[in-house]
Amino acid sequence: MSKTTISAAHPFDQAIALQPVTVTAHEHGRESTRHWQGQTHPAYANMVGPFGGITAAQALQAVLQHPERLGEPVSFTANFAAALADGAFRVEARPVRTNRSTQHWLVTVSQTDATGVDSVVLTATAVTAVRRSTWSAADAVMPTVPRPEDIVRASLAKRVAWIQRYDMRPCAGAMPAEWNGAEADSLTQLWMRDEPPRPLDFCSLTAMADVFYPRVWRRRALMTPVGTVSMTVYFHAGAAELAATGEGYLLGQARAQSFFNGFFDQSAELWNAAGVLLATTHQIVYFKE
Amino acid sequence: MSKTTISAAHPFDQAIALQPVTVTAHEHGRESTRHWQGQTHPAYANMVGPFGGITAAQALQAVLQHPERLGEPVSFTANFAAALADGAFRVEARPVRTNRSTQHWLVTVSQTDATGVDSVVLTATAVTAVRRSTWSAADAVMPTVPRPEDIVRASLAKRVAWIQRYDMRPCAGAMPAEWNGAEADSLTQLWMRDEPPRPLDFCSLTAMADVFYPRVWRRRALMTPVGTVSMTVYFHAGAAELAATGEGYLLGQARAQSFFNGFFDQSAELWNAAGVLLATTHQIVYFKE
Repeated sequence: MSKTTISAAHPFDQAIALQPVTVTAHEHGRESTRHWQGQTHPAYANMVGPFGGITAAQALQAVLQHPERLGEPVSFTANFAAALADGAFRVEARPVRTNRSTQHWLVTVSQTDATGVDSVVLTATAVTAVRRSTWSAADAVMPTVPRPEDIVRASLAKRVAWIQRYDMRPCAGAMPAEWNGAEADSLTQLWMRDEPPRPLDFCSLTAMADVFYPRVWRRRALMTPVGTVSMTVYFHAGAAELAATGEGYLLGQARAQSFFNGFFDQSAELWNAAGVLLATTHQIVYFKE
Repeated sequence: MSKTTISAAHPFDQAIALQPVTVTAHEHGRESTRHWQGQTHPAYANMVGPFGGITAAQALQAVLQHPERLGEPVSFTANFAAALADGAFRVEARPVRTNRSTQHWLVTVSQTDATGVDSVVLTATAVTAVRRSTWSAADAVMPTVPRPEDIVRASLAKRVAWIQRYDMRPCAGAMPAEWNGAEADSLTQLWMRDEPPRPLDFCSLTAMADVFYPRVWRRRALMTPVGTVSMTVYFHAGAAELAATGEGYLLGQARAQSFFNGFFDQSAELWNAAGVLLATTHQIVYFKE
């Protein structure tokens, strides 16, 4: 990727850019499988490998730019099989079943190591659908919190690049000030948006579903090693609702329900500032100790 | 499947029984892909095709009986691509990545129609892991409800077979007595167990995660057409906790957070009678109107 051609683009758009790869017919059996090449982006680097939210967004992007896609994302699950190495990766996206109004997708992200061995680093499934207007109701109650303008922006952890790509304004359950092992609840509420601001779309909403710091850090005030192993996003909005959100802040709320022998869960909701519930999201996370 | 050889088995065990299929080497590229054949079971029939919970359990069973499986299920996602036709189906299970203590799985269930065309009817991903003993805490609060022995068993809808395979005792949010369009909350709490009783395992727990009747029926008191498109189960218990549960009742609690243009979500928790949180589960469901 030439830096001169992308310098004007938002870092998020740079990060999710995928180039089509031509695959000869004998390497795959279905016309509809599409292969893409992507590149990890230094602006979204985490401690080890990239921020999981950006990898999930890259996998969803392969579905969104597939020429046979039907409708908009309704459901997306990403399984993080291994930390990505910095550099190139391949994405394979395949519509395994196309119905009248819904379509089911399989996605794999893989990398080739220095010895030439291919490995899967992420699997994903997605459901896209042509939505119709129906009776609708959002029952998840948006919490009453101060406006983002009235909250001090969270300080940036300089050693982790991706944190600097989000403007985060915690309302409750901020990162513990002291790692003293004092147990608390697992709830966090925060306003968030891309930094610099960027109009919301399905990929950036997916990435923001993974913005919350690990619930076990909040619950225990102990910074133990963690890693998300599987994340699901349910979209409760269409392109029109995302466009109406624009560059505005999202209110996110996350909490855990169980920490058990090495894995904890997280359930979260994401609303726009107008109170529209855009997504609910769930993940299960490895933790050590 | 010969009826004489399985007549003593529980219907659930009959339903999840899978026979290995030999696939010649040129048909698949990896040693580790295993092919199984299963059969829809009349005892778990739904209105159209089988109860989704039994299909999910069949897909998980392919992972559990794969000779290369590492550890126990931590996460499982099933995507329902189409209603199964009565009869045989094939399950393909492949460990796409095996790490030191975790393993990532891809599963597809497919059927061949009368014209010889193969179609995917379900995709699934799973994460299995060798758990280690860690600090643990279950934060989801089990609701206080009457004991199952003190609740009248829900009446059985004779025209849907699978309902009869569960002893369900509703504590709150039972199926509406009148379909009069009177809006309510979306909460249901009920005790449930296999009928006849059967010791709990990962497959039956997965099936029970799908036992709740559609939230939109509860919310609107209208019986509109529905179909689960994707379901995720996070397991917060190991084989020991499931064995300790034995044939006892589980308390399930489910509610929706959003109904939007043709799809609603459901989040649920499953505890055993001793108050141990065994699983949390989420799904997104198509609804018409």
